[in-house]
Amino acid sequence: MKHAEQTYRAAGVDLEAADQVVKLIGQQAHSTLRPGVLSGIGSFSGLFRLTGYRAPVLVGSVDGVGTKLRIATILGKYDTVGIDLVNHCVNDILTSGAEPLFFLDYIAMGKLIPQRVEEVAKGLAEACREAGCALIGGETAEMPGIYSGEDFDLVGFVIGAVERDRLISGKGIKNGDLIIGLPSSGLHTNGYSLVRRVFGEERVRLEAYSPELGRTLGEELLEPHRCYLNLLKSHLHKIKGLAHITGGGIPANLPRILPQGLSARVKKGSWEVPPIFQLIQKEGQVPEEEMFRVFNMGVGMALICSPEESEQLLEALPGARIIGEVVKGGKGIIWDHVD
Amino acid sequence: MKHAEQTYRAAGVDLEAADQVVKLIGQQAHSTLRPGVLSGIGSFSGLFRLTGYRAPVLVGSVDGVGTKLRIATILGKYDTVGIDLVNHCVNDILTSGAEPLFFLDYIAMGKLIPQRVEEVAKGLAEACREAGCALIGGETAEMPGIYSGEDFDLVGFVIGAVERDRLISGKGIKNGDLIIGLPSSGLHTNGYSLVRRVFGEERVRLEAYSPELGRTLGEELLEPHRCYLNLLKSHLHKIKGLAHITGGGIPANLPRILPQGLSARVKKGSWEVPPIFQLIQKEGQVPEEEMFRVFNMGVGMALICSPEESEQLLEALPGARIIGEVVKGGKGIIWDHVD
Repeated sequence: MKHAEQTYRAAGVDLEAADQVVKLIGQQAHSTLRPGVLSGIGSFSGLFRLTGYRAPVLVGSVDGVGTKLRIATILGKYDTVGIDLVNHCVNDILTSGAEPLFFLDYIAMGKLIPQRVEEVAKGLAEACREAGCALIGGETAEMPGIYSGEDFDLVGFVIGAVERDRLISGKGIKNGDLIIGLPSSGLHTNGYSLVRRVFGEERVRLEAYSPELGRTLGEELLEPHRCYLNLLKSHLHKIKGLAHITGGGIPANLPRILPQGLSARVKKGSWEVPPIFQLIQKEGQVPEEEMFRVFNMGVGMALICSPEESEQLLEALPGARIIGEVVKGGKGIIWDHVD
Repeated sequence: MKHAEQTYRAAGVDLEAADQVVKLIGQQAHSTLRPGVLSGIGSFSGLFRLTGYRAPVLVGSVDGVGTKLRIATILGKYDTVGIDLVNHCVNDILTSGAEPLFFLDYIAMGKLIPQRVEEVAKGLAEACREAGCALIGGETAEMPGIYSGEDFDLVGFVIGAVERDRLISGKGIKNGDLIIGLPSSGLHTNGYSLVRRVFGEERVRLEAYSPELGRTLGEELLEPHRCYLNLLKSHLHKIKGLAHITGGGIPANLPRILPQGLSARVKKGSWEVPPIFQLIQKEGQVPEEEMFRVFNMGVGMALICSPEESEQLLEALPGARIIGEVVKGGKGIIWDHVD
């Protein structure tokens, strides 16, 4: 059997669109340049000259945005998911005390739409500038047949550095230390599959004004993941441990930084759970335990410090609350309630 | 309207499977440990102590495997795509003269299947051990609704380092330098959307023995992307420029390393084009120009050196062929033919 003449374009891959995308991302990336960058987008790899460290520890993290992407797709709003991605990654390495140096991204879609990629890259560049890290590379993949319709995936990779003697590892945490919660800006990037199940995926629902939220549901759900770098960077020496509250919520993330034999006693009611979580719980009849296992419930980052340091930190960090304390006992979470 | 009680599991996300995956990947990752690694899989971030460099340049790259994943899915063979991914990334940073330090991966699927992730991780770990780089982190995302059926995506990030004065940048390339091609192991990771269009996606077709290939079509298509690190690492000081021949083939990748005002005159017929490319061209009636624009055509890596260094390199590198030379003229490719 004879086939018609085949080309890559006919197979769904457009190399000219790919070239255009490299140019558009390059323009965005240019705005993030910082000392150290030796090359940028368009090379086989990104080059960064590491200087100014006596004993550098490199800290790397990779993350995605999860199905929050789906909300962006439904609403046709693509300029915030890049912010989510960068901030998620930057928060992850901040838990080691590291400041970000550079960032690389991966965008995959079924059909490459250069304008859409540019919107995403705008968000990446904005958050990179804010965090002082350079967007030095990336990969844009057109994968017909794997991504369908408007769906896409977005993955980020950050590299930061910290002096070895300033590494935050949780090792110094002891019985009686305090746990301080920092407010999240909303759902951040976790729990969106449950959210889509609870609220459905209809655009009209997402665009309706919600009196509980004071804005539309869609605006609330696309609120960017908050970055804690600039807030915390001058206080890192006072902090013994930092837990980024992502997938799995407080019970999955807080124990990760505790030394063996210690637990976190966390007091429900010691911070305010934002309205979006109450709305999800009510609308989906989600059991409370499940809510805490899936969402950050208003605490985006938890830090552990000695009681002596806590006063200064509470004063310096807007919205910070003591949400619990470190106690003896098996590594884990002990839930408690404010009387 | 009342909904039934909702949980994350009912929404398609299984946090217990996620925990199991972290354990399984952790076992694979453990086999890749090397000096420098301070933490591994399961932390918020991967930590690597950088020592032994006077003036380190960090080199980072991100890549995917493209729709080669689809061939793996159809054949139910998941242990080679991880090798593809690591080798692709390692080759990319090798073009700067960098040796890899550590690697992070991202795996996304619609439904998390721990055994499948473990197969993928086996390939990642095998290639990491071979390249001497540590698998120190990753993210596994369950994204129901974005990935359907058996589909998944796989993304890798590598960080390497090179002394500043040993950086390979192509800057020293001049008129009269020679271009040496190194054999690819097959398609590597590019052109699979066209391949799937030419051969279709039926398992029976992929499992049929092909006399031209001396094995099944599926075996040929899943042949892992070759890594050039161990072959080239003791010769990097003799090399002025290295181009990894990936998406866009020789015409898109070779000019990227040439200084302004120089072109690559490449002689078709100076190396043997492997049977798989002839088969694709014939079966799909793909124009020759398109073949060279989509596939590596048997040259997986091209290096540029002075005529004086070329003899030693040709002797040391099995299968290496002079495939062209650097000439004056606009930055690009000039095709030529062996008489």
